[in-house]
Amino acid sequence: MSGKVYLVGAGPGDPELLTVKALRLLRGAQVVLHDDLVTDEILQLIPCSAHVQNVGKRCGRKTMRQEEINFLMVTLATSGSQVVRLKSGDPLIFGRAGEEIEALRRSNIPYEIVPGVTSALGAAASVGIPLTHRTSASTLVFTTGHRASTNSDASADSEEEWSKFARTDSTMVIYMPGSDYAEIAARLLAAGFESETPCAIISKATTNMQQLYRTTISELHRARRLPAPALLMVGDVVRFAERESEQPGISFAKPEKTFALQSLSREGSAA
Amino acid sequence: MSGKVYLVGAGPGDPELLTVKALRLLRGAQVVLHDDLVTDEILQLIPCSAHVQNVGKRCGRKTMRQEEINFLMVTLATSGSQVVRLKSGDPLIFGRAGEEIEALRRSNIPYEIVPGVTSALGAAASVGIPLTHRTSASTLVFTTGHRASTNSDASADSEEEWSKFARTDSTMVIYMPGSDYAEIAARLLAAGFESETPCAIISKATTNMQQLYRTTISELHRARRLPAPALLMVGDVVRFAERESEQPGISFAKPEKTFALQSLSREGSAA
Repeated sequence: MSGKVYLVGAGPGDPELLTVKALRLLRGAQVVLHDDLVTDEILQLIPCSAHVQNVGKRCGRKTMRQEEINFLMVTLATSGSQVVRLKSGDPLIFGRAGEEIEALRRSNIPYEIVPGVTSALGAAASVGIPLTHRTSASTLVFTTGHRASTNSDASADSEEEWSKFARTDSTMVIYMPGSDYAEIAARLLAAGFESETPCAIISKATTNMQQLYRTTISELHRARRLPAPALLMVGDVVRFAERESEQPGISFAKPEKTFALQSLSREGSAA
Repeated sequence: MSGKVYLVGAGPGDPELLTVKALRLLRGAQVVLHDDLVTDEILQLIPCSAHVQNVGKRCGRKTMRQEEINFLMVTLATSGSQVVRLKSGDPLIFGRAGEEIEALRRSNIPYEIVPGVTSALGAAASVGIPLTHRTSASTLVFTTGHRASTNSDASADSEEEWSKFARTDSTMVIYMPGSDYAEIAARLLAAGFESETPCAIISKATTNMQQLYRTTISELHRARRLPAPALLMVGDVVRFAERESEQPGISFAKPEKTFALQSLSREGSAA
C-alpha cells in the first residue's frame, strides 16, 4: 500500500466534535503527528499499534521546526505509511497547513485534507453566541492577536489594520489573543470599535475545563487571564453569551458529558 | 423525559463530515426539522421512527416563515420531544440561529448547540486552499453575496462595505454569491481588490457533485454558473486550489468515497 498524508482537523477539544471521517482515519492510522493542543481524550482514540508523536510548538518553545515536520511527513509517507497530521480545530485556519501542502505537492505525496470544527465555532456553540445575525452581524472575521507568532499563520511584519474590521455589523474572533488584554483593547479602540462593544473570552472551549468571561472592550484590561487555548470574540452578538453569571465575570459551562465514544477508546479499538 | 431542542450543524454535505455528536443525535431524534440544503445521504441516517420535516427556505420560495419554525420547535419540545433542528454547515454561521435561540430562551426550552464544519471549511479542504497562510493571509472574512436575502443573516439594509475587507493579506469567502458574478466582480473591484486576485467558485462542496471553477476577479463575469449551494473564495491563497485544470475553468474533484456509514443507514439503525 502506498503512503499518504491526511491533514486532519481534530475539532475544538470535545472528542464527540471530531468528524466521523477524522475518527475513522485516527483509528486506521499507522502514524499520527499531532499538535500540542490536541486533547488527551482525542489522543486516547488512537489505537496502540500506531506511532504517535507530538510535533507541536507552543508558547514559543520550539519542539520541532516546520521544515522538520514537513520532512517527517514526506519521509514517512514515502516509506509507505498512512500518516495522520492531526491539528486542533480545522487544519486550514491558522494551522500552517499551506506550508505542509506545498511540501507534500513538491514531493508528489498523495494527501487529503479533512476539515474540522474550528475552535471559534465550538466556542460559539458552547456559550450560545450566533456568529452572524440577520439584524446585527452580516460579516464574520477571524484573525489572530499575535503579531509575531511562531505558531500561527499571522504574518510577522504585516501591519495589523483592525480598523478595516471595526464595523458595527461584523463579529470579530481573535484567535490566540495572548495575555496582554490591555493592549488588545487599546488596538480595538484605536481601530474604531465602540468602547461598550461586548466581548467574551472563551478558554478551552468544549472541554470540561471551559471558562467564559464576559466583558466589554472598556473593561477588557481587567479581565482575568484564562488559560490557553483561548479566543476573544468581539461584537454585538456577544451579548447572546449565556448568562450563568449576570455580571461580567467568570462562568463555567459544563458540556453535556456523553459516553458514546467509550467503546472507541484505545483498548476498545485494540480488541 | 422533558423535551429539548438541539441546533445541529450537518456539515458541508459529505455525511462523513458530520460530527460524531451530530450523528448520535440524529440517530436518537424523535423529530428532525431540517433545512433544504441538507443532503439526502445525511437524511438517510435518520431512523424511520423519527418524524422528519423540511422547513427550508430556498431561492426566495418561502416554505415556512422563521416565526413558524420557531413556533414548531417550541411546541414540539414543550410536548416532550427531542427535536433536532438540522442546518447545513454550522448552525451559527448564516443560519438565523440567533432568532431561534431567542425564541427558545423566551419559552424556557432547554437547548444545546452542536457546531458543524461550515461549508467554507469543507470546500477549502476539498480543493486544497489554505484559508490562512503565514506569509500571505493573516485574516479570514466570511460574508454573503445576497443584499436582501430571506434565507441568510445578511442584513437587508446594511450598506455592504467590502472596501473594509480589501486587504492583500486577507481571504474572503462569500456565501450565497448568487448568479450575478459580474455584479460581484464589480463590487470587489470597487472595493479596491486587485483585478488579478485569484477567485474560486466551489459548488456542492464535499459531495460527489462538487465542481470547482478557478478564475480571477477580472474574468469572473465569464464564469460558468454553477449550481447552488456555491461559495466564492477570493484572495491570494486561492492560487493553491488544486490544478486538475491548469487553465481557469471547470474541474471536478471526486471526494474519496467510503462506506463507513453504511451500517448506520436508515435500515441499519432500525435493526
